[in-house]
Amino acid sequence: MPTQNNYPLDRIFRPSSIAIVGASASASATGWVGRLLKFGYEGDIFPINPKVNKIHGLKAYPSVCDVPSPVEYAILNIPARFTPQVMRDCAAKGVKFVHCYAAGFSEIGTEAGKRLETEIANIAKEGGIRLLGPNCMGIYCPDSGMTFDEDFPKEKGHIAFVSQSGAEASRLVFLCQDINLYFSKVVSYGNATDLDATNFLEYLAQDADTNIIALYIEGVNNGPRFLAAVRKCMEQKPLVILKAGLTENGAAAAISHTASITGSKAVWEAFFKQTGAIPAQTMDEVTDVIQGLAHIKKPQGRRVAIIGRGGGIGVVATDICERAGLAVPPFSIETRQRLLQIIPEAGAGVRNPVEPKIGMEGATEFYLKGLPIVDMDTDTDIILIQMAIDVYGGHTAELMQNVTDSAYALCATADAIKKPMAAVLFTGGHTDTIEAVIAARNILTKAGIAVYSSVEAAARALSKIYNYYCYLDYYA
Amino acid sequence: MPTQNNYPLDRIFRPSSIAIVGASASASATGWVGRLLKFGYEGDIFPINPKVNKIHGLKAYPSVCDVPSPVEYAILNIPARFTPQVMRDCAAKGVKFVHCYAAGFSEIGTEAGKRLETEIANIAKEGGIRLLGPNCMGIYCPDSGMTFDEDFPKEKGHIAFVSQSGAEASRLVFLCQDINLYFSKVVSYGNATDLDATNFLEYLAQDADTNIIALYIEGVNNGPRFLAAVRKCMEQKPLVILKAGLTENGAAAAISHTASITGSKAVWEAFFKQTGAIPAQTMDEVTDVIQGLAHIKKPQGRRVAIIGRGGGIGVVATDICERAGLAVPPFSIETRQRLLQIIPEAGAGVRNPVEPKIGMEGATEFYLKGLPIVDMDTDTDIILIQMAIDVYGGHTAELMQNVTDSAYALCATADAIKKPMAAVLFTGGHTDTIEAVIAARNILTKAGIAVYSSVEAAARALSKIYNYYCYLDYYA
Repeated sequence: MPTQNNYPLDRIFRPSSIAIVGASASASATGWVGRLLKFGYEGDIFPINPKVNKIHGLKAYPSVCDVPSPVEYAILNIPARFTPQVMRDCAAKGVKFVHCYAAGFSEIGTEAGKRLETEIANIAKEGGIRLLGPNCMGIYCPDSGMTFDEDFPKEKGHIAFVSQSGAEASRLVFLCQDINLYFSKVVSYGNATDLDATNFLEYLAQDADTNIIALYIEGVNNGPRFLAAVRKCMEQKPLVILKAGLTENGAAAAISHTASITGSKAVWEAFFKQTGAIPAQTMDEVTDVIQGLAHIKKPQGRRVAIIGRGGGIGVVATDICERAGLAVPPFSIETRQRLLQIIPEAGAGVRNPVEPKIGMEGATEFYLKGLPIVDMDTDTDIILIQMAIDVYGGHTAELMQNVTDSAYALCATADAIKKPMAAVLFTGGHTDTIEAVIAARNILTKAGIAVYSSVEAAARALSKIYNYYCYLDYYA
Repeated sequence: MPTQNNYPLDRIFRPSSIAIVGASASASATGWVGRLLKFGYEGDIFPINPKVNKIHGLKAYPSVCDVPSPVEYAILNIPARFTPQVMRDCAAKGVKFVHCYAAGFSEIGTEAGKRLETEIANIAKEGGIRLLGPNCMGIYCPDSGMTFDEDFPKEKGHIAFVSQSGAEASRLVFLCQDINLYFSKVVSYGNATDLDATNFLEYLAQDADTNIIALYIEGVNNGPRFLAAVRKCMEQKPLVILKAGLTENGAAAAISHTASITGSKAVWEAFFKQTGAIPAQTMDEVTDVIQGLAHIKKPQGRRVAIIGRGGGIGVVATDICERAGLAVPPFSIETRQRLLQIIPEAGAGVRNPVEPKIGMEGATEFYLKGLPIVDMDTDTDIILIQMAIDVYGGHTAELMQNVTDSAYALCATADAIKKPMAAVLFTGGHTDTIEAVIAARNILTKAGIAVYSSVEAAARALSKIYNYYCYLDYYA
C-alpha cells in the first residue's frame, strides 16, 4: 500500500494521468507509452502525436489541449526547439508537472541553448508548472508504476536516489537489484532549471516510504538552501552523496553534461564535515554504503573480527581494514581458548583473523559453532566474514553445493548474532564458480546479510557506516 | 621448449625426480602423488610410505634411502616432529632440494617450534640441501609439470610469482587465468628458513622465461641483499610487490603466519621510492598491474582519452582518473571536428570523455571509425574504453551478440592503434549479462587487450604503469 503524503511534490511520483508529447508511432519501438504500459502504470496514458490515431492501442491526440480529461503530468519527447510551444499548451491545459526529456539546452554550451532553457523555465513559472529537466530521464517509482526503463524491477523498497545523471540512476538501480535492494523513488533531474536536488531532498526527508537517500550531484543552484535540506535529511535518515566534478577536468565534463557549476574541492570537503553526509566517489561505493546502511547494525566501535582465512589472505585483509580506519586487534584470551576447542588445528589462526578448518565444510561448521563465540568476544565490534571460495579446492558441482550450504549456515546463525556483520564473496579466480557465487549472494542478501565483492569494498563501507553512527551519536 | 638455464636454482623448478615423503595411501584422496601425475610431471615420482606397497600405481618405499635411483627433490608431507629424521635421510640420499610442506615450526610462536625449524635448517645446511619452507605450498611450473594444485592451468606464460603465502599464490594464478595470463614459475616459500624471496628474485632477474615478476612478501631476512636483488630485477624487468603487514595488526598477523618481522612503513616507503618497484595493496591490484605490464604499450604521458559514455558516467570516470594521478584534458579542436563527422548528435560528447552513438551498435561503429581519430589526437597519451554494457538497453540474446560484436570490433581496430589502450568491462547491474561480459573479456584478453573490471581499477593500474616507465626513463 502506498503511504499517502500531503507534501505537494508527492504528486510528481504518482500522477493520475501522463501525456507523452511526441509519442513514438513505431510499432517496433517500445517508447514511453509502451514502457509505462509494460511496467504497469495504472493512471491514464495519453499519447500525443498529430500524425496517428492510435499508439499501443491507446487513442492519440494532436496536442495536450485536445485531451478530453485532465492531464497531471507530461513527458516532452520532442526536439528542443518545439518545447516552448508545447510548454504553452501544457500551461493552457493545466498540466501540473512537465518532465522535459529532450536535451539540447544550456548543456550544449550555446547562447541559443541557454535562451531556450530560460524560455521554457519562464513559461513553466508563469503557467504554474513544476518543470523536471530538461535533459533528464525523469521518474522511477515502482509503487505508482512510473519508470524510464521497462527492465527496472517492479519490487518496492525504501531507498531513494536523486540523480543529476540518468545513466548513473540506471546503474544504481541495477547494482542494487543484484543484491536484492529496491527503491521507493528515483529521480533523474538533469539541468535542474526548476526542480533540483534541494526540492527532492526536502521532500524525501519527510517521505515515510524512504529510509535511505542517495544523491548524485554535479552542481547546486542555491547553496544555503541545499545545505539546509541536507541537514534536514540527516536529522531523519542517512544520506550518501556522490559529488561529481571535483577534479579540474571532471568539473569541465560536468559543464558539458548538465551545465553545472561544480564548486571547489575545499568547499565540498567542508560541506561533508559539517553535514555528516556520507561521501562516495563511485557508484559501486554508493551501492556498498547503501547496502551497509540497509543491513548492518550500528557498530559500537571500529574493531573488526575477520573470519575465513588466516595466512597471507588474513594479513592482507588486516592491512586493508586498518588502512580504511578500522582496527583488527587480537581476540581476548578467553575467546581464543574457546575457538581452539572447535578448531584445535588452527594454532595461531584463532588470534584474529580466524582460520576455520580448511574446506567449505569447515566454513559451514564455523559459521554455526564459531561465530557465536566471536560474537561474545569483548574486543570485537564488527564481524567480517571472508567466504573465500576461490582458494578452496576445485570448482565442481560439490563446490557449488558447499558454497550454497555455507551461505545457508550463515543465514541460520545470523539472527542469533548480536554484533554487526558483513560477508565478502569474491568471484575472483574461477569464472566457472560465478554462478555459485551469485546464488550464494542471493541467498545471503535476501536474508538481509550485506555481501561485498572484496575486503576493500567491505572495509571502506564499514568505515563510512561507523563514522555515520559516530556523527549521529555526537549530535544526539 | 624449456629455456635451458645454468643458474643453480633453476633445478628446483625442473627436478628429474620427486620423492613424496608421507604420500597418502588413501585411494579417494588425490594427494601430492596424484596431483603430480594428473598435472603431467614427467620425471620420476617416488611415493614414500612404510605402510603400503603401491600408491596411484607407483611402487612405494619405506624411506627415501630405499629408493633405488637418485632423488633430486623431496616433498615433506609429514607432521613437523618427524621432519628432522626425514631431513637426515634426505641428506644421506643426496637429495638436492627439500620442500617442507609441513607447518608447525617458528610460525606457531613456541620455543619448540623455533628449535625444530633451526634443527632442520642445520641438517639442510650440513647435508648440502636447499630447503624450501617449512610451512609453504612449494613450486608451480607448468613447463616441468610441477604444481601444488591440479586445477592450475597447464598453459605456460612469462609471469613469475614469488609468494610468502600459498593461498595468495593460488589466488593470483586463478585471477590471471581469467584474463588469459599465465606463469613461467610460481613459488610459495613460507617461513623462508633457507631459500627466501631474495634467492628467487636473483634467479628470476636472469630467467629468460620470465618477463614480469610479482612478489608477495611479509618479512625480509637480509635487507641489503634483498635490496640488491630488487634493483637487479628492476634493471631487467618490472617487479610488482605486495608488501603485507604494514599496519599495526597486519604486522602481528604476519608473525602468526610466517614468523616474519615486517619492518616499518617508513622503511618500506623509502624502499619503493629508491628501487622503483611497483607497489600494490591487494592481489586484485597485483593482477591489474601485471595485466597492464603485459598488454599496455609504454605511455608517453598521463593524458587519458575516455571513450564510451559521456554524461554522469563520464564525469565520474574523469574524476577517478584525475584522482589516480592521470589527466583527462579536452581533445584538440581538430579532433573534436573530426569526431563530430562520425557522431554529429554527440554535441558536447566529443570533448573528452566521448559519448559514441547510444547502443552497442554505436560502440561497435565508434571502435572502428572513432578510435583511429582519437589515436591521432595530439593531446592524448592513453586511450581508456568504457564498455558500459549494463546501462545499454536490456539484457537479452541481442545484447549478448552486441557485446561480442563490439569486443571483436575493438580487436579488429587494436592493431592499428598506436597509443596504449585499455578497456573497462564492468558486470555491475544485470547478473544475467555476466556470461556475455566474461565471453567478451575472453575475446579481448586473448587478443592482448587489457580489460579491467572498473574505471577505478584501470586508472590505478595505468597510473602505476606510467610511473614505472617514468622511472625507467629517468634511470636510462
